[in-house]
Amino acid sequence: MIHLDLIGIGTGNPDHLTRAAERAMRAADLILLPRKRADAADLLDLRRALCAEVLTDTTRVVVFDLPERAADGPYLGPYLGAVRDWHDAIAAAWAGAIATNLPAGGRVALLVWGDPSLYDSSLRIAARLRRGGMALTVTVVPGITSLQALTAAHAIPLNTLAAPVLVTTGRRLRTAGWPADIDTLAVMLDGDCAFTTLDPAGVTIWWGAYLGMPQQALAAGPLADTGAAIVARRAALRAVHGWIMDTYLLRRTAA
Amino acid sequence: MIHLDLIGIGTGNPDHLTRAAERAMRAADLILLPRKRADAADLLDLRRALCAEVLTDTTRVVVFDLPERAADGPYLGPYLGAVRDWHDAIAAAWAGAIATNLPAGGRVALLVWGDPSLYDSSLRIAARLRRGGMALTVTVVPGITSLQALTAAHAIPLNTLAAPVLVTTGRRLRTAGWPADIDTLAVMLDGDCAFTTLDPAGVTIWWGAYLGMPQQALAAGPLADTGAAIVARRAALRAVHGWIMDTYLLRRTAA
Repeated sequence: MIHLDLIGIGTGNPDHLTRAAERAMRAADLILLPRKRADAADLLDLRRALCAEVLTDTTRVVVFDLPERAADGPYLGPYLGAVRDWHDAIAAAWAGAIATNLPAGGRVALLVWGDPSLYDSSLRIAARLRRGGMALTVTVVPGITSLQALTAAHAIPLNTLAAPVLVTTGRRLRTAGWPADIDTLAVMLDGDCAFTTLDPAGVTIWWGAYLGMPQQALAAGPLADTGAAIVARRAALRAVHGWIMDTYLLRRTAA
Repeated sequence: MIHLDLIGIGTGNPDHLTRAAERAMRAADLILLPRKRADAADLLDLRRALCAEVLTDTTRVVVFDLPERAADGPYLGPYLGAVRDWHDAIAAAWAGAIATNLPAGGRVALLVWGDPSLYDSSLRIAARLRRGGMALTVTVVPGITSLQALTAAHAIPLNTLAAPVLVTTGRRLRTAGWPADIDTLAVMLDGDCAFTTLDPAGVTIWWGAYLGMPQQALAAGPLADTGAAIVARRAALRAVHGWIMDTYLLRRTAA
């Protein structure tokens, strides 16, 4: 029997950890840390540092290689099909790491960036393990999302008074546009600055990268003035750090 | 000079506190706890218990009376105008409590349910103080929202794969309906079960009340089967506890 804790750890700032997250980390027999492509070594290092800070010596920490997403890149091609294949491959990697390191069963934990509910695939991958026959129970420990880190860093509310917010992706913003009757968009998973496809008139952007981390970068202002500067800064930061994670809020303001 | 920390504390479970929240609480000279109507004494007691658990003796904790929202009730009448008047009254109450308890300036903190960015008015009230002439700086400490507590309790993702989520209110769901091209709605501030106004065919609901608290209540299933049971259970729980805070997720599932 395997118990899996999916632990939201926030966006890389150890101060984002909740008491529940620390407790779940210490209660685990095994914590699996994914190793992605080499240029994102920062992310592995951050998770290692959290483990070093939080754990007592009864929890084993094991690094496993995360499969790469196939061929045509994260924001091109037959996206959903490629993602589903990738999730199958990750499920196989998890199953292998669990079988090797917890042959008699026990508690395994994964440290999930942000919160396991928001644009994260851990729950879908866990469902694959269950469908594949693993006797598995799952607990989710909520964590601070990049949207919360963004609004906190800018000290702004996500919603205007009693109004809705659409949480969406860069891909979706490009293909479906901005719905007429929703004035606030929170955009995630945008590798390609989808805000450049919008009419900037009357729109304000609040942008943040590496939120909560020492290299945190922020920008805000009218989209017409600020959009191009964000595109340039994003490219420069990506070149320096080898990777970038960013998110932004767009709001239509009264004319 | 006043520095204000708006500290997200999660939904009443001390385990939702982040390290940043604990640190900010201890760094405050003064923590102001709002006292609402008597039947919500649980909420004041929860904040008091958090303070007792986290604080060292250098922080003063002061309870102040929160003004009541005017006459025609939270979900009726000229809603936005009534809310704005109410926020003016709260700003006056904050200003009075700060002037009385920090006459020479210092760090004041408010413990905000959930996260200060999401359907919370503290940032708007702080802006009123600044407009009223107070020399005020503001820091936001993000906290676990009831949406995250909901999805964690049910161990479900907020979004389906790469798809958007509309975060909205019960009032808005009643007046504007469910947008055709968005399959997931997260509904907050719903005092009156707006899901009963929807065609339930093909819709699943995940509901939770008192999320993270000892009296947490959960229900999930097809809206057609589960909706009426939630209405009844919600009324019963409200009668027992004197208050209720709940939230829910609605998802259209493939036919």
